[in-house]
Amino acid sequence: MEAAGQIRDLEELKHRLRGFVAERDWAQFHSPKNLAMALSVEAAELTEIFQWLTETQSMELDAARRARVEAELADVLVYLVRIADRLEIDLLAATSRKLAENARKYPAERVRGQALKYDEYD
Amino acid sequence: MEAAGQIRDLEELKHRLRGFVAERDWAQFHSPKNLAMALSVEAAELTEIFQWLTETQSMELDAARRARVEAELADVLVYLVRIADRLEIDLLAATSRKLAENARKYPAERVRGQALKYDEYD
Amino acid sequence: MEAAGQIRDLEELKHRLRGFVAERDWAQFHSPKNLAMALSVEAAELTEIFQWLTETQSMELDAARRARVEAELADVLVYLVRIADRLEIDLLAATSRKLAENARKYPAERVRGQALKYDEYD
Amino acid sequence: MEAAGQIRDLEELKHRLRGFVAERDWAQFHSPKNLAMALSVEAAELTEIFQWLTETQSMELDAARRARVEAELADVLVYLVRIADRLEIDLLAATSRKLAENARKYPAERVRGQALKYDEYD
Repeated sequence: MEAAGQIRDLEELKHRLRGFVAERDWAQFHSPKNLAMALSVEAAELTEIFQWLTETQSMELDAARRARVEAELADVLVYLVRIADRLEIDLLAATSRKLAENARKYPAERVRGQALKYDEYD
Repeated sequence: MEAAGQIRDLEELKHRLRGFVAERDWAQFHSPKNLAMALSVEAAELTEIFQWLTETQSMELDAARRARVEAELADVLVYLVRIADRLEIDLLAATSRKLAENARKYPAERVRGQALKYDEYD
Repeated sequence: MEAAGQIRDLEELKHRLRGFVAERDWAQFHSPKNLAMALSVEAAELTEIFQWLTETQSMELDAARRARVEAELADVLVYLVRIADRLEIDLLAATSRKLAENARKYPAERVRGQALKYDEYD
Repeated sequence: MEAAGQIRDLEELKHRLRGFVAERDWAQFHSPKNLAMALSVEAAELTEIFQWLTETQSMELDAARRARVEAELADVLVYLVRIADRLEIDLLAATSRKLAENARKYPAERVRGQALKYDEYD
């Protein structure tokens, strides 16, 4: 049985998802390859909500769209945590390293106010 | 300046990203619409690593591929936290609600060992 | 009114779609940015059909899944033709150039039986 | 050897791709599942070009971005034709059926000037 209630952190979420998957015998489907596909599908379902909205409209969602966004963000996080668990990757450690790398690749004084890839700046 | 070092939780990550974006004056690009696009692109970069691998190979990554997976998972988490922050959504609360909903839609005794959408079961 | 019946080639499809969009006053939504998002969403809906199937199962679809695949392939083609039309790109000419480039980047004798990116070969 | 030169229609493209794949012994990688992943990755590479552009900017591409768009549209078409070939689906016939269905689901007088899903109209 899944523990009910509010999840406090990524570590608890990881364990809750392990239980959910084990009870359903779904680990057989959860190869990293399949989980990556599932994550990209959820990301697209998020994108779909915004595709015909202007950027301004995307900041001022009505209640129905906002609820859909919440559900899709949750789905993305679920698969993200599952892939990381399956491959024994520490998500926050990996993100810490990535932010350090991004800080090097995108020095504030160089990229301010521009949105290019790091190799597109003059 | 970004604080260096290991990020402890999603709340700290949210604040670190706010600082990163503010220093670069990038908030102007970070509409939910654009962030959703960026998240889906990162999800695809993750998928790309696995696309020609078998499921078994996807569980036994060499060091180079594993490092790429870590970087892409981090990128997905970064945009996920940014969208949630922009729309003032509590990611863990939304995920708690979604897991409760999934438990209702996919009762263990009914779906065990099958991977269908909830409306595809007999 | 849309002309009914079988579409013979990409040029006819382009014109049929122009009529469909004009009748609905949808050109205002069809910026290349939005059309690219819509295309990626349709690509994900295609992916979703396969995500929990093995590769072997993906080659032996039942009638219901096969019908869904046909519909999603059609949706992808529709948005592909719309983007190309919006930007005045000749799809078959662009593809001819890309195949020539691919032939240079992936010489048969060098890549035979391996699926790597062109910069990953020794 | 690939025939050089301009491709005239989807049928010729299908045969050119068959030859390209056979020469490289790549059919083993081209399950519909893997091809769908590859298509979604190419769709994301297209999306990436537009993600930080405004809708207006997406209509006025500079030469470098335009060349990238052309290449990504070609990649999408290549995988689309490959999946259809692998599953023996006639792309233009499937698209003809889909347009007829869209005409029913989105009657012009009902949806004019609005971009909602067919089940979201009052």
